[in-house]
Amino acid sequence: MSTDGNEKKVRKVIKRQDQTVVITKGDETRGFNGNIPIVAGAKIKVIPLGGMCEIGKNTWIIEYENEMIIIDGGLAFPSDEMPGVEIVLPDISYLIQNKNKIKGLFITHGHEDHIGGIVPMLKQFDIPVIYGPPLAIALLGEKLKDASLQDKTTLHKGKPRSTIKLGSLAFTYVRNTHSIADSFSLIIHTPLGQIVHSGDFKFDFTPVDGEFFDVYSLAKAGEEGALLLISDSTNVEKEGYTPSERSVYNRLEEEFFKATGRIIITTFASQVHRIKQILDITQKTGRKVAIYGRSMLLLATISKELGHMTFPDGLIINTEDVNKMDDDKIVILTTGSQGEPLSALTRMAFDEHKQITIQAKDTVIISATPIPGNERSVANVVNALSAKGAKVIYGRDAHIHVSGHACKEEQRMLLNIVRPKYFLPAHGEYRMLVMHGNLGVDCGVDPQNVFIMENGDVLELSSDSAKLNGQVPAGIIMVDSTRVGDIDKTILEQRHKLGSEGLLSVMATVKNGKIISEPIIEAKGLILMQEDTTSGHFITDAKKTIVDALKASLEKNGKNMEDLQAKVKEELRDLIHKELRREPLLQVVILESK
Amino acid sequence: MSTDGNEKKVRKVIKRQDQTVVITKGDETRGFNGNIPIVAGAKIKVIPLGGMCEIGKNTWIIEYENEMIIIDGGLAFPSDEMPGVEIVLPDISYLIQNKNKIKGLFITHGHEDHIGGIVPMLKQFDIPVIYGPPLAIALLGEKLKDASLQDKTTLHKGKPRSTIKLGSLAFTYVRNTHSIADSFSLIIHTPLGQIVHSGDFKFDFTPVDGEFFDVYSLAKAGEEGALLLISDSTNVEKEGYTPSERSVYNRLEEEFFKATGRIIITTFASQVHRIKQILDITQKTGRKVAIYGRSMLLLATISKELGHMTFPDGLIINTEDVNKMDDDKIVILTTGSQGEPLSALTRMAFDEHKQITIQAKDTVIISATPIPGNERSVANVVNALSAKGAKVIYGRDAHIHVSGHACKEEQRMLLNIVRPKYFLPAHGEYRMLVMHGNLGVDCGVDPQNVFIMENGDVLELSSDSAKLNGQVPAGIIMVDSTRVGDIDKTILEQRHKLGSEGLLSVMATVKNGKIISEPIIEAKGLILMQEDTTSGHFITDAKKTIVDALKASLEKNGKNMEDLQAKVKEELRDLIHKELRREPLLQVVILESK
Repeated sequence: MSTDGNEKKVRKVIKRQDQTVVITKGDETRGFNGNIPIVAGAKIKVIPLGGMCEIGKNTWIIEYENEMIIIDGGLAFPSDEMPGVEIVLPDISYLIQNKNKIKGLFITHGHEDHIGGIVPMLKQFDIPVIYGPPLAIALLGEKLKDASLQDKTTLHKGKPRSTIKLGSLAFTYVRNTHSIADSFSLIIHTPLGQIVHSGDFKFDFTPVDGEFFDVYSLAKAGEEGALLLISDSTNVEKEGYTPSERSVYNRLEEEFFKATGRIIITTFASQVHRIKQILDITQKTGRKVAIYGRSMLLLATISKELGHMTFPDGLIINTEDVNKMDDDKIVILTTGSQGEPLSALTRMAFDEHKQITIQAKDTVIISATPIPGNERSVANVVNALSAKGAKVIYGRDAHIHVSGHACKEEQRMLLNIVRPKYFLPAHGEYRMLVMHGNLGVDCGVDPQNVFIMENGDVLELSSDSAKLNGQVPAGIIMVDSTRVGDIDKTILEQRHKLGSEGLLSVMATVKNGKIISEPIIEAKGLILMQEDTTSGHFITDAKKTIVDALKASLEKNGKNMEDLQAKVKEELRDLIHKELRREPLLQVVILESK
Repeated sequence: MSTDGNEKKVRKVIKRQDQTVVITKGDETRGFNGNIPIVAGAKIKVIPLGGMCEIGKNTWIIEYENEMIIIDGGLAFPSDEMPGVEIVLPDISYLIQNKNKIKGLFITHGHEDHIGGIVPMLKQFDIPVIYGPPLAIALLGEKLKDASLQDKTTLHKGKPRSTIKLGSLAFTYVRNTHSIADSFSLIIHTPLGQIVHSGDFKFDFTPVDGEFFDVYSLAKAGEEGALLLISDSTNVEKEGYTPSERSVYNRLEEEFFKATGRIIITTFASQVHRIKQILDITQKTGRKVAIYGRSMLLLATISKELGHMTFPDGLIINTEDVNKMDDDKIVILTTGSQGEPLSALTRMAFDEHKQITIQAKDTVIISATPIPGNERSVANVVNALSAKGAKVIYGRDAHIHVSGHACKEEQRMLLNIVRPKYFLPAHGEYRMLVMHGNLGVDCGVDPQNVFIMENGDVLELSSDSAKLNGQVPAGIIMVDSTRVGDIDKTILEQRHKLGSEGLLSVMATVKNGKIISEPIIEAKGLILMQEDTTSGHFITDAKKTIVDALKASLEKNGKNMEDLQAKVKEELRDLIHKELRREPLLQVVILESK
């Protein structure tokens, strides 16, 4: 069942069959209107490998006949349930299996959850071309250099309103506004019609860099008829609008004017507009700025080169000169907005920074919001800074941060502009996708045309229908230290068990059916190994239990070491449950001496 | 330096010396005005054992000469940094050392962070009398019964505006408003003047139970001259006012009217007013309610007995009858508002509840906010419920929950009413105490008269000064399962290490200076023990490293087992760092066979 409005729009898409376009392989065609001939019986598959039912590792496949195009290749940061894991990548085995079909990759913007998974891809297969906004391409270029993967792909800059034809499909970059400079939505031109992919966005009508959201291009797609809208669900739980990035300026300026000592300020390293505003205010208040943190310095340098910010020579000083400056003449711009243990700000807060010691007259500004899961780390940093007497400006009510994602009212606006036939909420956890889906229905999308998908689900579009049709492999690859994909569920379960219940290990040696040494018991993360405590009592009992179990087994069924171990484990588990009421990981080794 | 206003008030306190009162030991004296003779050279110590630089385990000592009075005895819930810990208690060794001085304990209200530590106290020492609001006393009574500790104290109900004299001090109960019925502030009458302890509070001017905040009594204390204000800092990071509990009614009613299927609703078990409103709306919408969760049923029963809520017989039905009811006639009121793994709601969400299966037409209302640290668990429950198609009403923008604590404007109001000479922000993390302290200064307290204290700090008040003077033992006692205080820092550090880095354990046997069996290697939470992976390669290398290290040591310095173990550990640590770049807990046991 479709509403009349939607039916009309879809017919309009079908009617475009007579239009023709010049097609050049891998060509960025200025002025190309992106119209692709409609092909009867065509089928398009839209497959998310990441970003569905989660925030992070956004990775999409658009598949048409024997062609695959990737949109974004992101990573995710580990949740609390993944102790010891550093980053999380999508399972890309479907891409590996089909690597010969891959025509290229389009980046929407330069955040890690959209580009951080590209290097791991290039380690597995070549990607003929990668298009992206200039800032994202510059950031990716650095990554490829670090990993010596430059020859695995060719990087191209995608410019606003440029349409790039790759194989049978074409992609138009539409400038949007987000918490990083150079962010884009995409219009994907297919033989079935146009797909609008919002990318990450908010409607910032007064952008700091004067680069306005290209509302017209999306509205035009809507007017011509949009088959499918894929859209950012991040802030669907919030009513109203996200304020403009510019709204932060006055509040920051106010705090800068009030500060009588040093200003220490942190934000997301990638938040180019925020950094630009901080540099502007630094200059206005007659201060100089020193930048701490490699990622932040890199962003500032690249952004200056690309013209996203301008500042006079001498405004940024070297960190070694900071302590030569008067306190009221210096701004310390640093990483650490998430309370990351190794970041400069965290080290300053906990007296572990080799150069900067927090003073009572310092003003510390945390111009960022904790990403879910980081609340505790950030709170700990604020507590430590407060304990040193610093004035700390942070948190929701300080109005020194705005989100980069659209709230409900903006999402409704996008739905109204694009008026898609099919709607696919993306970039959100399950509850957000559902809520966003309902918003789509409120805005006129047929409930049956809203798809709540999980990673790996295949949305198959044809000229008269859309349906979920099968699945491709999808999942998470957890990476710790330098190794990729060696961590699986078993290891995580063991870490959980060890981390919450601790360990008891037991060793004993038998020879010729007899115990020849006293059992050795070690406990870690379980009880203290002291004789004069409840624990001491337990250890005595445990030794007796082990010896009794061994003796009984040895008398009965001889020398099968596995049986002996199983028997000891069983008896010990009962004892631990009875005396300690815990379930530690139990390690029992019975050695046979010859 | 004091402001004139404060000086005047303090002089007024001093002038009260001529007043006399009838003093009866442990007596609740109606009409007693609480005035205590001012004693020249008197010193009062105010000592927090919990609740400072943290939210939780609120426990205070008021000490005068050889007398100690305890105010509240709370527990805290473990943070993420305390894996495997169930509850956290304050270190009460100072109380144990001085148990003969303890005259009694006053409870401000019945939340666990104010009464959950009393049973552990009573296991260590008797408390002659415990006064508390009727609801708190009823809840504590149940706890004492469960622990068979009824003979360790005597419970008394403290009524609004009643003043209780204990030893040389007296305590007046002043009704306030909070997220549990029967919540009180305390005025502590001392030989130096009056101390106002806010307890947990908000200013709810339209309380659901019609029991209004006794503003007059606190204002009177301010007018007479308040020496010290101890006040709740929980919501100091939020501007404005916390809305009245009553504001939730209309929103809940709206959702009840809209629901076409079952309504499943959760809130804090102790939120008597919320539960009362839920029962009222249940009746109004012609439904019946079944209550899941022991703590919630207990609260409802006790609250009805005490008159905090009234409802007709038959409104609450037995849980076994739920599935006989029409879906649009039933409300399921359940625990689980924090996503607790074993709670009824969590089990329903994850298909683990033996009776209730979530259906697409269910409306689930989470009328609570996640306590910091529980955000992920609650989000997981909402995701799971959404995935089952249930309509889930939750979160800040749903307006189906309000806090029980005062926001900034209310804290300013209390400061204005009480106009204390000294100000002690309490019930908050460090940053909150500092922020609340600044609020005090804004409201006229001399900056030098604001004290930011940590647990165990001693605030010593005398007739002309107040100062931090020394410390008593304070700290945390972590409790897991049934044992108290056996967990220390070492155990937690080991759990952390095991939980994030995993374990490698190695065993080998030597005899007469020779290795007589191949080393046994076990890894948990580290690598997979498979031969055909990177890990397999590592295991081969590790075995070689162990054998080489043992051989070299055995040749050199014979048979000291500890030296052998240390040597193997050192070599192995290098290998692990090189090949795995990790730092697991290493357990090496070399057995000597005779």
